[in-house]
Amino acid sequence: MLGVFDSGLGGLSSVRKLTEILPREDIVYFGDTGRVPYGTRGRETIIRYALQDLRFLERFSPKAIIVACGTVSSVALDALRQATEVPVIGVVEPAVRAALAASRERKIAVLGTPATIRSGSYAAKLKAADPALSVLGQACPLFVPLVENGHIDPADPITKETVKRYLEPVLAFGADTIILGCTHYPFLKRAIGEYVGEGIRLIDAGTESALETKRILEEKDMLSQAGGERRFYVSDSPQGFAETARVFLDREIGEAVKYVDIEKY
Amino acid sequence: MLGVFDSGLGGLSSVRKLTEILPREDIVYFGDTGRVPYGTRGRETIIRYALQDLRFLERFSPKAIIVACGTVSSVALDALRQATEVPVIGVVEPAVRAALAASRERKIAVLGTPATIRSGSYAAKLKAADPALSVLGQACPLFVPLVENGHIDPADPITKETVKRYLEPVLAFGADTIILGCTHYPFLKRAIGEYVGEGIRLIDAGTESALETKRILEEKDMLSQAGGERRFYVSDSPQGFAETARVFLDREIGEAVKYVDIEKY
Repeated sequence: MLGVFDSGLGGLSSVRKLTEILPREDIVYFGDTGRVPYGTRGRETIIRYALQDLRFLERFSPKAIIVACGTVSSVALDALRQATEVPVIGVVEPAVRAALAASRERKIAVLGTPATIRSGSYAAKLKAADPALSVLGQACPLFVPLVENGHIDPADPITKETVKRYLEPVLAFGADTIILGCTHYPFLKRAIGEYVGEGIRLIDAGTESALETKRILEEKDMLSQAGGERRFYVSDSPQGFAETARVFLDREIGEAVKYVDIEKY
Repeated sequence: MLGVFDSGLGGLSSVRKLTEILPREDIVYFGDTGRVPYGTRGRETIIRYALQDLRFLERFSPKAIIVACGTVSSVALDALRQATEVPVIGVVEPAVRAALAASRERKIAVLGTPATIRSGSYAAKLKAADPALSVLGQACPLFVPLVENGHIDPADPITKETVKRYLEPVLAFGADTIILGCTHYPFLKRAIGEYVGEGIRLIDAGTESALETKRILEEKDMLSQAGGERRFYVSDSPQGFAETARVFLDREIGEAVKYVDIEKY
């Protein structure tokens, strides 16, 4: 079983990638919809929430924990790894490796929530691997509300203006590679791609983290031969979950969604 | 002492109005920044949070509790009134009275968070007062993130496109009066006003609720003759509070901001 958690429902895009790349694995997903968003909260709060999310998923004896949340991956990954024996896979490290492999001009931009960008986690890891690299961190606070309210069509004037606002500095900076450092952002990939043009490589952190999970399971010879069951838990009313899940998973879900009182963990 | 609470910092706009209208009253403000936003959460969660907020403020023996949150005023006001002896003043009822007095064409639009509009609380109260009234509820999910990220300039293209998206149906409907049913929306009053034109009356729920508070204190002969102290509490890191408060209160705040663990109430 793989445990996946996110501050909300954006992490379902990681479930989708995991299902594509590892179709035989059972997945338990926890979306902390009762306390979303994490991105605007203080560091201590984010770590406390992440540890509770971990403790809840550990009840299912997972083979690995996938942190589908850019904010938690940036702020709380070390705390999580100290708290468990299970491999913890974030979205930052895999995306950093992919970006380093893709960039020729050595100019990389990172799009993320204000907390992710403020944490400097992507920039620090990129620079540690290659000190000659230029990195621009661009906070995109309106992208999550845009996606959650369905404004993902590249022709939507609100989407267009918002993409322009955040990506204009990225173009001025001259990035040849852009990391989409938040689970929601792949839904804006088309809108971003149309604005920046084809020459620029977009790295989707969710996809890279699913590939990393596959590598780790292969290494440990822990790949499942049968399975593919999925269970979903949320910390707020499950009402409305099915509809959102349909958008993020791109298919109907028949699975039941259960409420969990996360403050108990 | 007046107790004021909101799901976040938007309610500081109510503190500003209360300070203008009742400058001698001491105010304790609680902003539930650790659990913001309420507007997207389920009904049970909103009621549970609101009761915790109430219990915290009751420690200060308030003369009245002002619920500066449109979502709580729409969803949880009855639960709050059943739980306390202290007068509880929401933002819905005062705004409804003001809108009924202002509208000549008997066509009123209500702007609010998805939860406020879904609750139908404004529409129900308007219709109860005048069944012949036409009411349009317009959910504006992007307005809060716009305000919180400083996109309030009417010339900002993102603001312009978003205002157009939500207000176009309001103009098509033919409203002569618009209720701004969320504490954040007064910051978009100029942008909304420029789009809809001068003939349409904009009712600010925060102002109406401050006037209602004054009426109630006068009635009970409880107006303060001296005072004006303000105290601020939040449920997430107080870091960054001063800056936001400066925007919402339109002045520097010297007062200390304290953290409160709201889950304990």
